[in-house]
Amino acid sequence: MDNLAVPGFTASAVAVDIKGKGDGNLDMGLIVCEPRAAAAGVFTKNSMAAAPVLICRERILSGRAGAILVNSGNANCSTGEGGMTDAIRLCRRAGEMGNIPEEEVLMCSTGVIGGRLPADRMERALSHLFDNLSPDGLEQFSRAILTTDTRPKTDAVDLVLGSGEARIAGVAKGAGMIAPNMATMLAFVFTDARIPAAQLNEMITESVGRSFNNITVDGDTSTNDTVLLLASGVGPTLDDESDRTRFQQGLNEICSSLAEQIVADGEGTKKVVQISVLGAADDADADLAARAVAQSLLVKTALAAADPNWGRLVAAVGYSGALSSPEKISLNIGDVAVLRNGEPVEGYEEMAASEVMRRDRYTIEIDLGEGTGQQSILTTDLTEEYVRINSEYRT
Amino acid sequence: MDNLAVPGFTASAVAVDIKGKGDGNLDMGLIVCEPRAAAAGVFTKNSMAAAPVLICRERILSGRAGAILVNSGNANCSTGEGGMTDAIRLCRRAGEMGNIPEEEVLMCSTGVIGGRLPADRMERALSHLFDNLSPDGLEQFSRAILTTDTRPKTDAVDLVLGSGEARIAGVAKGAGMIAPNMATMLAFVFTDARIPAAQLNEMITESVGRSFNNITVDGDTSTNDTVLLLASGVGPTLDDESDRTRFQQGLNEICSSLAEQIVADGEGTKKVVQISVLGAADDADADLAARAVAQSLLVKTALAAADPNWGRLVAAVGYSGALSSPEKISLNIGDVAVLRNGEPVEGYEEMAASEVMRRDRYTIEIDLGEGTGQQSILTTDLTEEYVRINSEYRT
Repeated sequence: MDNLAVPGFTASAVAVDIKGKGDGNLDMGLIVCEPRAAAAGVFTKNSMAAAPVLICRERILSGRAGAILVNSGNANCSTGEGGMTDAIRLCRRAGEMGNIPEEEVLMCSTGVIGGRLPADRMERALSHLFDNLSPDGLEQFSRAILTTDTRPKTDAVDLVLGSGEARIAGVAKGAGMIAPNMATMLAFVFTDARIPAAQLNEMITESVGRSFNNITVDGDTSTNDTVLLLASGVGPTLDDESDRTRFQQGLNEICSSLAEQIVADGEGTKKVVQISVLGAADDADADLAARAVAQSLLVKTALAAADPNWGRLVAAVGYSGALSSPEKISLNIGDVAVLRNGEPVEGYEEMAASEVMRRDRYTIEIDLGEGTGQQSILTTDLTEEYVRINSEYRT
Repeated sequence: MDNLAVPGFTASAVAVDIKGKGDGNLDMGLIVCEPRAAAAGVFTKNSMAAAPVLICRERILSGRAGAILVNSGNANCSTGEGGMTDAIRLCRRAGEMGNIPEEEVLMCSTGVIGGRLPADRMERALSHLFDNLSPDGLEQFSRAILTTDTRPKTDAVDLVLGSGEARIAGVAKGAGMIAPNMATMLAFVFTDARIPAAQLNEMITESVGRSFNNITVDGDTSTNDTVLLLASGVGPTLDDESDRTRFQQGLNEICSSLAEQIVADGEGTKKVVQISVLGAADDADADLAARAVAQSLLVKTALAAADPNWGRLVAAVGYSGALSSPEKISLNIGDVAVLRNGEPVEGYEEMAASEVMRRDRYTIEIDLGEGTGQQSILTTDLTEEYVRINSEYRT
């Protein structure tokens, strides 16, 4: 685990037993920023967005945040007016205890949809959370937000800027319901750099587009997806174009690292495969084709079996809606050439392709031969383990 | 097995060992119509359509067909120019042997994508197929077209029309790659009624829209999907509106029966679930929502476990793109009310919902509360067995 401490931020976690299982796992966390952070966020596009997402979406408009309250085990989604009341009440109480304006307390929830939070128990746990805030608390916090994840996802980077050194650290959760547009994922990224909220907003939107939006485990977009970027401002400012570029690159790096950690921890997943489409009529077409391949059950089961059943790749491209034709498509599995302009490559050895597919991480390259559009999506294999996990999730 | 014989049609089948496995299974079939049938067809929209689909699509434009040659075990797709040459040569040879104009011989293939047909062996088998044609041959034929199917899909209906009795019989295959727009499926429907090709075309298009297009097993649209409707014309004509209605109803019935048989035989499938969306802003929105739910991996694994984890249904509606909101959605699992206008139904018992979900066949009803649009889609559970079948399909 990296050292995740970022000047200006403290964090803590506690086991509230949100699911009522008595397993003693950490399942509620708190992050406090002193002084108030500049803040930006990106949220699920799911129209059934959960109560905490509705609250975050509205409150983030001020560009300021003082605390983030997070729980796992319960998504507080499809809980009607009662669920909204619960979330507002918890934020208000946290604001009172931390001396933070209520509307600067954000909340995120992840877990099962459709049940009410144990709000009384959670409210009683707030004093423990405030009493135990520490600059090193992000490690505990990163474990409190997990659901079916098998491990925490964290990363940090130090940047040398014109007026001093800045730090970006991130923690994330997510393992299933990982989808085209974001995922059932929460990610929290912190920096001590002094950056106005409007600029944070631009930067996080760009980073999310290059990372969390380009991963897929099962194609389901969750009701609770949230990425928050907070800047405490106790560190350096971004003084020129070069600082801004360096910061954006650092942010991209952290988001991509967290996104890749999410895919690699996908439920029942044994490998991470990059689907790279090039030669598409335009980037949007490349995106269509790459997502269709990356989400095809038949492709994903073939990946699990390390079976170079490449016809399934071709079929997925064919129904993706991207301009494509049987005479122009070319295909590589790792460095093994399979198809060239629709004709089988002479000397193609299925064994060689199968060998590539036994690796933990490799790339499938599909050239549509139509133009210069391109897109890459990270996907996973689909194993019997995935089905088992998702059949038994609540039992 | 129903009696499938239809006046004017004969059929046969043979084991050619297309996959080279020596299992002795029937894998090549022939249907001949004497005299020439009026014909119409509906084909995959996949841009990587297989060679036989390209041939069928062009030849069906004449509205006439004399024979259909079918093989399983190999899709003859992504086979370049060589694959097209193979298909054309087999049709030509069949035409010569059956004294049928070459352009009235149709061909359909289903199976693994990317390998060439054993065309020499298939050509040699043609004489056996022609020698063994029989009015009762459709039963054998229905077995020769299967791939991962566990059983043949057939149905027949007799209709009393104004000028006499007519018959409609159908055979189909399909178990995986069953998708939003048609499926990896072949269906052949025969009648002795005397109906012009243009009218057959209208009728089969309507029937496919109500049946094969509304089933999903895994969301993959295949490269080889084909539905053909042939009318020998040795039976009665459709004399008035009442005859036409009766015939259309009979055709709908056969297509729906075959479609439901395909879903019920979905790979690894234990149950068939109807997803009925109503109260949508319009029918197109209902379709979006129903398909999103019907194709969600998380929904399908919950169906497998008989787990009323209904939050997954709500989440899928939310990302479907259909107009919907958390305050208006209502939900029933069978006759168990779960959600009313976004609020949990009082007295809802999870055990009761779980009991419904243990049935082989039930309906989930989702009311969006936005308008009068509706759509129903048949889907299946997703089991570990599905993953096993599709990981091991070629091995």
